[in-house]
Amino acid sequence: MPRVDLPLDQLLEYRCTTPEPDDLDEFWTTTLAENDHPLDVVLSRVDTGLTLVETYDVTFAGYGGAPIKAWLHLPAGHQGRLPVVVQFHGYSGGRGLPQQMAPWPLAGWAHLTVDTRGQGWSQGGVDPTPDPDAAAASSHYPGSMTSGVESPQTYFYRRVYTDAVRALQVAASLEQVDPDRVLVTGGSQGGAITIAAAGLAPKAGVRLAGAMPDVPFLCDFRRSLEIASAGPYPEIEAYLKGWRGRGEQVLNTLNYFDNVHLARRAECPTLFSVALLDTVCPPSTVYAAYAEWRAEKEIAVYEYNGHEGGQAYQQARQLGWARARLG
Amino acid sequence: MPRVDLPLDQLLEYRCTTPEPDDLDEFWTTTLAENDHPLDVVLSRVDTGLTLVETYDVTFAGYGGAPIKAWLHLPAGHQGRLPVVVQFHGYSGGRGLPQQMAPWPLAGWAHLTVDTRGQGWSQGGVDPTPDPDAAAASSHYPGSMTSGVESPQTYFYRRVYTDAVRALQVAASLEQVDPDRVLVTGGSQGGAITIAAAGLAPKAGVRLAGAMPDVPFLCDFRRSLEIASAGPYPEIEAYLKGWRGRGEQVLNTLNYFDNVHLARRAECPTLFSVALLDTVCPPSTVYAAYAEWRAEKEIAVYEYNGHEGGQAYQQARQLGWARARLG
Amino acid sequence: MPRVDLPLDQLLEYRCTTPEPDDLDEFWTTTLAENDHPLDVVLSRVDTGLTLVETYDVTFAGYGGAPIKAWLHLPAGHQGRLPVVVQFHGYSGGRGLPQQMAPWPLAGWAHLTVDTRGQGWSQGGVDPTPDPDAAAASSHYPGSMTSGVESPQTYFYRRVYTDAVRALQVAASLEQVDPDRVLVTGGSQGGAITIAAAGLAPKAGVRLAGAMPDVPFLCDFRRSLEIASAGPYPEIEAYLKGWRGRGEQVLNTLNYFDNVHLARRAECPTLFSVALLDTVCPPSTVYAAYAEWRAEKEIAVYEYNGHEGGQAYQQARQLGWARARLG
Amino acid sequence: MPRVDLPLDQLLEYRCTTPEPDDLDEFWTTTLAENDHPLDVVLSRVDTGLTLVETYDVTFAGYGGAPIKAWLHLPAGHQGRLPVVVQFHGYSGGRGLPQQMAPWPLAGWAHLTVDTRGQGWSQGGVDPTPDPDAAAASSHYPGSMTSGVESPQTYFYRRVYTDAVRALQVAASLEQVDPDRVLVTGGSQGGAITIAAAGLAPKAGVRLAGAMPDVPFLCDFRRSLEIASAGPYPEIEAYLKGWRGRGEQVLNTLNYFDNVHLARRAECPTLFSVALLDTVCPPSTVYAAYAEWRAEKEIAVYEYNGHEGGQAYQQARQLGWARARLG
Amino acid sequence: MPRVDLPLDQLLEYRCTTPEPDDLDEFWTTTLAENDHPLDVVLSRVDTGLTLVETYDVTFAGYGGAPIKAWLHLPAGHQGRLPVVVQFHGYSGGRGLPQQMAPWPLAGWAHLTVDTRGQGWSQGGVDPTPDPDAAAASSHYPGSMTSGVESPQTYFYRRVYTDAVRALQVAASLEQVDPDRVLVTGGSQGGAITIAAAGLAPKAGVRLAGAMPDVPFLCDFRRSLEIASAGPYPEIEAYLKGWRGRGEQVLNTLNYFDNVHLARRAECPTLFSVALLDTVCPPSTVYAAYAEWRAEKEIAVYEYNGHEGGQAYQQARQLGWARARLG
Amino acid sequence: MPRVDLPLDQLLEYRCTTPEPDDLDEFWTTTLAENDHPLDVVLSRVDTGLTLVETYDVTFAGYGGAPIKAWLHLPAGHQGRLPVVVQFHGYSGGRGLPQQMAPWPLAGWAHLTVDTRGQGWSQGGVDPTPDPDAAAASSHYPGSMTSGVESPQTYFYRRVYTDAVRALQVAASLEQVDPDRVLVTGGSQGGAITIAAAGLAPKAGVRLAGAMPDVPFLCDFRRSLEIASAGPYPEIEAYLKGWRGRGEQVLNTLNYFDNVHLARRAECPTLFSVALLDTVCPPSTVYAAYAEWRAEKEIAVYEYNGHEGGQAYQQARQLGWARARLG
Repeated sequence: MPRVDLPLDQLLEYRCTTPEPDDLDEFWTTTLAENDHPLDVVLSRVDTGLTLVETYDVTFAGYGGAPIKAWLHLPAGHQGRLPVVVQFHGYSGGRGLPQQMAPWPLAGWAHLTVDTRGQGWSQGGVDPTPDPDAAAASSHYPGSMTSGVESPQTYFYRRVYTDAVRALQVAASLEQVDPDRVLVTGGSQGGAITIAAAGLAPKAGVRLAGAMPDVPFLCDFRRSLEIASAGPYPEIEAYLKGWRGRGEQVLNTLNYFDNVHLARRAECPTLFSVALLDTVCPPSTVYAAYAEWRAEKEIAVYEYNGHEGGQAYQQARQLGWARARLG
Repeated sequence: MPRVDLPLDQLLEYRCTTPEPDDLDEFWTTTLAENDHPLDVVLSRVDTGLTLVETYDVTFAGYGGAPIKAWLHLPAGHQGRLPVVVQFHGYSGGRGLPQQMAPWPLAGWAHLTVDTRGQGWSQGGVDPTPDPDAAAASSHYPGSMTSGVESPQTYFYRRVYTDAVRALQVAASLEQVDPDRVLVTGGSQGGAITIAAAGLAPKAGVRLAGAMPDVPFLCDFRRSLEIASAGPYPEIEAYLKGWRGRGEQVLNTLNYFDNVHLARRAECPTLFSVALLDTVCPPSTVYAAYAEWRAEKEIAVYEYNGHEGGQAYQQARQLGWARARLG
Repeated sequence: MPRVDLPLDQLLEYRCTTPEPDDLDEFWTTTLAENDHPLDVVLSRVDTGLTLVETYDVTFAGYGGAPIKAWLHLPAGHQGRLPVVVQFHGYSGGRGLPQQMAPWPLAGWAHLTVDTRGQGWSQGGVDPTPDPDAAAASSHYPGSMTSGVESPQTYFYRRVYTDAVRALQVAASLEQVDPDRVLVTGGSQGGAITIAAAGLAPKAGVRLAGAMPDVPFLCDFRRSLEIASAGPYPEIEAYLKGWRGRGEQVLNTLNYFDNVHLARRAECPTLFSVALLDTVCPPSTVYAAYAEWRAEKEIAVYEYNGHEGGQAYQQARQLGWARARLG
Repeated sequence: MPRVDLPLDQLLEYRCTTPEPDDLDEFWTTTLAENDHPLDVVLSRVDTGLTLVETYDVTFAGYGGAPIKAWLHLPAGHQGRLPVVVQFHGYSGGRGLPQQMAPWPLAGWAHLTVDTRGQGWSQGGVDPTPDPDAAAASSHYPGSMTSGVESPQTYFYRRVYTDAVRALQVAASLEQVDPDRVLVTGGSQGGAITIAAAGLAPKAGVRLAGAMPDVPFLCDFRRSLEIASAGPYPEIEAYLKGWRGRGEQVLNTLNYFDNVHLARRAECPTLFSVALLDTVCPPSTVYAAYAEWRAEKEIAVYEYNGHEGGQAYQQARQLGWARARLG
Repeated sequence: MPRVDLPLDQLLEYRCTTPEPDDLDEFWTTTLAENDHPLDVVLSRVDTGLTLVETYDVTFAGYGGAPIKAWLHLPAGHQGRLPVVVQFHGYSGGRGLPQQMAPWPLAGWAHLTVDTRGQGWSQGGVDPTPDPDAAAASSHYPGSMTSGVESPQTYFYRRVYTDAVRALQVAASLEQVDPDRVLVTGGSQGGAITIAAAGLAPKAGVRLAGAMPDVPFLCDFRRSLEIASAGPYPEIEAYLKGWRGRGEQVLNTLNYFDNVHLARRAECPTLFSVALLDTVCPPSTVYAAYAEWRAEKEIAVYEYNGHEGGQAYQQARQLGWARARLG
Repeated sequence: MPRVDLPLDQLLEYRCTTPEPDDLDEFWTTTLAENDHPLDVVLSRVDTGLTLVETYDVTFAGYGGAPIKAWLHLPAGHQGRLPVVVQFHGYSGGRGLPQQMAPWPLAGWAHLTVDTRGQGWSQGGVDPTPDPDAAAASSHYPGSMTSGVESPQTYFYRRVYTDAVRALQVAASLEQVDPDRVLVTGGSQGGAITIAAAGLAPKAGVRLAGAMPDVPFLCDFRRSLEIASAGPYPEIEAYLKGWRGRGEQVLNTLNYFDNVHLARRAECPTLFSVALLDTVCPPSTVYAAYAEWRAEKEIAVYEYNGHEGGQAYQQARQLGWARARLG
């Protein structure tokens, strides 16, 4: 198949050249400070029929105080404080039904799987999480990518990244959890939120044990727009196709959410994955974020895969990587 | 090309068999009563460079008081009270730029071209009209079709149809306009809003001189879902694909907005158009609404056209039809 | 979306009219008798890193003695004889990696997930299961559907169905398993094999506690060829497109493998699922098999889904159904 | 694959219900009379490098006297008067290069392969045959289907069918040919011209020994327009999509060229072929023409083929059929 | 979306390197001289129902004396000699119906909208303009692009460009028009004809006030063939695919019609537009022509648009640009 | 159309940089030695109805002794020992029916057209040739490309190339054939086998008079995987998509079958053809093999063609080239 991006040797050298906004730290420090209200975590036990795992319906107060939904899975009969894996989801997805299991609780760990506000349509499930912010009312191209894209203050992912940092705080605050052993993970948009959460965690006083983003989205926006032929990036171009002349304004907004910049701020070890035929999250943009990660890092490369990435192969690799860190 | 719907002789006989909700009139009477606040019309003159036409930027208070945008075009040097054509737009469109002209002002009439809240992305233009209602925050499949579809009270088109009835009131209230010569028109979603506005106008005390819906959308939802292969109807199925088990709830909501039922309440003459190869607004669903119209009516049939319908041919036909009614 | 098959009320009445081969029972009795060699089960423990589940690599002797691979998952620290769920896989899939978990072991049950010989390409994993039979050498259209389709004796699914019956025998023979509580399940091709295994189980002396086929394949071949627009059925037409004139010969072969006929022979309760927009396994063909099931039965209907069917929703429903039968 | 037309049992009963034009015979009698100028056949020997076959470049005067090109192939060293097969070509094709061999000369017969005026673009070759008629200048949708479709007098196929009848006369007039053993054949458009030539031959005093149309085009236009999803029929709809309101005028023109009507006039035996998955020349329209053939007839049915039809299988069948008639 | 051409900074530097034919000026001088017959303009008033605009059906003698159709729109009640905008149309289009209005007459100017011979099929309308030239009879790939492409003398656009120069002469000759204020415009093929008309106008003694080509076609043929993936350029490749070996002959013909060369000869100011995602008229080929324009020039760049270009945004920009020149 | 590979001037310079396996000669010498069993040629006369040609059904012992089928066509009434053309077929094809004629026997030569084991599905015909080797049983992605790709010893094309060398030996051994005038030809996969047969012929003691590969497949595998967007190369990527991590193993296998390396070993003159828009067998990979050919060579370039290449044009060119060598 025709290559979709640079050959591997050039990917390894590729760097994003867009400078970060001068006030990037200030923007996020302010955002998190403005959203420093109590977490208001509510847990309620759910019967899934799966006797090896104990499951709770979780609600906490996200950006602007909006209620965010999650599932908490714990190994049945657990004892002591457990390591925890916090997981975010791909664009359109969400926590789904409580029976949907990732392998983490089967490894003996807690697992917090968190909704993305305003999404969930591809899975359905129970009680979706709305995006009740006033900024969500703006006229935009359908989907999340251009919701409030007029300014960094109103952009959709300002709310989502803040929700994510608060989800880490929720995880660390649980009585069943060891706050020194918090991992964060997710694929595609979930990978983007993973990097963002890892990059912003230090500002929120959260110390992560590791981050495992897979085929992450929302990296190196300018290049992503020039390469991605599928997935949500083209929503931005669809918006700019109608609203001619707003290109620079939009790119300025997006730059506050570019995970190339947020990766630079992460302090925990990381295991990335990248797929060289990925037309949704082009490999150069994943490498661009990976290149900026300053703590211990490794990357799994899937040469002949598209956006599905490593799937079970990567899950197995993550399990090994996590076991080495979480015991 | 394979036919997309019934053959013409059967289209003429086709009737929608879904009964209307028992409380349909109550629902709409209540909705309009709850939104009976002042119109708060603001006009401001715009320079388009087109010397034959005078153009105004219009804002009025729609559903819930939200500001709705429109352009008002008047023939330059007009005298006396003019007939007016109120136009609504297709899904994703809007009033666009003030230079975009329909033929109505060139015929010597006023023309009020009205935004659809939350849309406009395919055209861009000036100051889009947001949809600031709390119900718009719900998690839904991207696009307008499933926004608030959980109940008739929260559904997107409750707000849009109400905005439309108020746009008729705005048009009739203008000092340059003869309130006895108000026509309403639009294609696709604009055709749907045309029928809805005509059907609800009597409840709002608006007497229309005519309605000209082209290839109208939002008619006979059950059948539309079973036939339409393109356009916005499939958004509903995409929502139900994820949110399994909500089919009847959603169809119940949609039934309050079905133009088969609202057509039954219209009291003015009408000129419909239908395209027999239309995969977006299937011809049987257009005929289903047309069949219920009880006032004087005619329909232009485009046998070999898809959703583009009659285009300039229909415009010419509408001009003739309107001239016969408006002078 | 345009309907892909009959409307629901007609689906409920639809029956396959192709008579079964006169010697169908003889064919299968002979086939199973010819393959009544020892099961030669070999188990070897695998470390998956998942502490709640114990996993074994399983090999047993299938049709013609060929080695068939499976994973056996058991809840860690299990005691006594467990219920077991035997799972077969969709076309192109297989048991995959040992970390890939279905919910069954989390419910406290044994889970045997079995390869389909000659497949597995869409997942990869560990040690694929070849199809070393001489009949597999025939020139055929790529894929499994026409492998050996010249006669019932040489057809691919003769080997696969036999492997499946033997997998049930393997499950029932395990020391950790209660042979009176064996369930069988699978989706698509896995659903086809589920029905076939349930229909043939009585001939092999296996008494099943239940069968849960999802969106099953290989039912009502004549109609499937006339409706399915995606998936493997069109491989048969591709074969017949080149090898003109072999239609009746091929349909005669397929009739020995039609699950409409094998469903008629099943003796255990069943929970089917069907998706009304399924273009791979058309809903009428699923109903055709369901109609012939003579034991206790129910069917989950997904009105707005394609071949993905109910996914997590169906998994939750299956868990409840299985709990009611297996405790 | 979803069936594209009626099931086989209904195809056998299907009849076209469009009545033929009252003046159909008059139209064609006049057309042929107006084009009764000398054939002006010119042959010139060509070296193809194929020693078993002798090849001539042929030019003759077609409709309006325009020069039409053909190749004449004869078995090398032939003796006496040979049977001849006259072949017409599919839409876009033509006689191509002189090295392109059909099996006819290898069977010991003469073979005259004739250009279609204005076509040939898909093959290239030597000296294309233009369509210099004044009627060809009309503005029409690209391709041949709507060239001059405004009236029967100006329509493209008036010229082509006349050229074809004259090609039969050319063949019968050759000194190497036995005028009592003339066969005509062709596939798709070539099949259409075959039927037309056979139907018009009696008016031109040509007695044919047989006609072998494969998957013929230009039959039962109304139905073809409603079924065909590929190939040239949709050109007609593309024309009517732009030129709204001309539907009946165009269908009236086409009716003079419908091979359902011309088949009724054929007097020689025939071997048809039809493909049941043909989306270009729908099988019901082929059966509609076949049903009207009043002389001895048979039809080869390719159940799992599209417009490619029987290819080499049909060639073999034709050879046998022709041998039985031509010796 | 993947970029379709060079990045913007390289577009600005890009130059076409194909040298122009030595006899280019001679070719066009001869062509125009051979077609210097009287214009034979006939105007007849049409009732459009649009009271602000007066419309005339125009016929004039084009290349070879063939009658070319146009509409002339004038502001009702106009006085004195008006500026005029002459508009040409995109491939397949034409003047359409007389009710189809561009904004020019609304700005108080005359507007002459001119048919392209042999086209018009995508719009329909009234009385299409045929292409009765003998060269149009040649066998070519369907569509206009290869009609007569065998030589510059016979090529389709020789006739079209000549018609266009004569349309400028018609406009300048009208009694209602000020011959010193003639603008020419058009999009896509209309943009190509705009450049050609501007480049050839000096040879015909026409002095233009400005040219406004949008996303122009027929520039830098060699590169266009290597980049364009949609629209009419691929017709040329389809022709060469069949008629193997004619590549250089065809490129030689096209070079006489390349607007890179004709742009070099234009003497009036210009406003271009270009769309950076245009797959029909690749942006580098537009810049190639723009780079050669030697008079005052500016270009509107639409970064996120395809061949639709700026639409209403560009119309607004053109109005401003034209007002500054025409008053 | 966007170019699919390098421009022509760079194609001429392109070289494959993958080194050949150190033991390439040993691998093939051993393979051929292991398959040096008697040819066991069986001929039986077939009646095709074509009187100018005499046809035989041929069976010979291929790799591992498996029976390989072919047709032998001879000019009727031939005398003395004839030149012979041995032809191999494209992927999915085969010898087909005995009536299918290439031009070779019409030029007075013998023609041996040989099946590819395990293929033939796109043509049907008589008695397909199976691939009964044990290595064919492996689980692989459907189609031939990954059958046994785990090692050079088990790979599908080891068997096919050996069959081909033996087919040359069969041809040379026929009593009707002059063993000094053996040509080999084929297109696509048939072109690949042509090069392989020519490269391996010296090891088998066969002296060829020439080789005519058209748009050959299986050249420069690494680059082919990066360019080809259609045809069988993507089967390899589909296999590696599931079986992650096997890339280098597979590329190592393929390197033993790369015709860049085998072309280097050919000793006879050659006429290649290449198509510059070929997305199945990218032109650079054809040039890569051509560049390594060390005997007399020429190449026909089809600039505007895809994988269909030169068709009848190339056939005519081959006839001329062959006549110059075979008389």
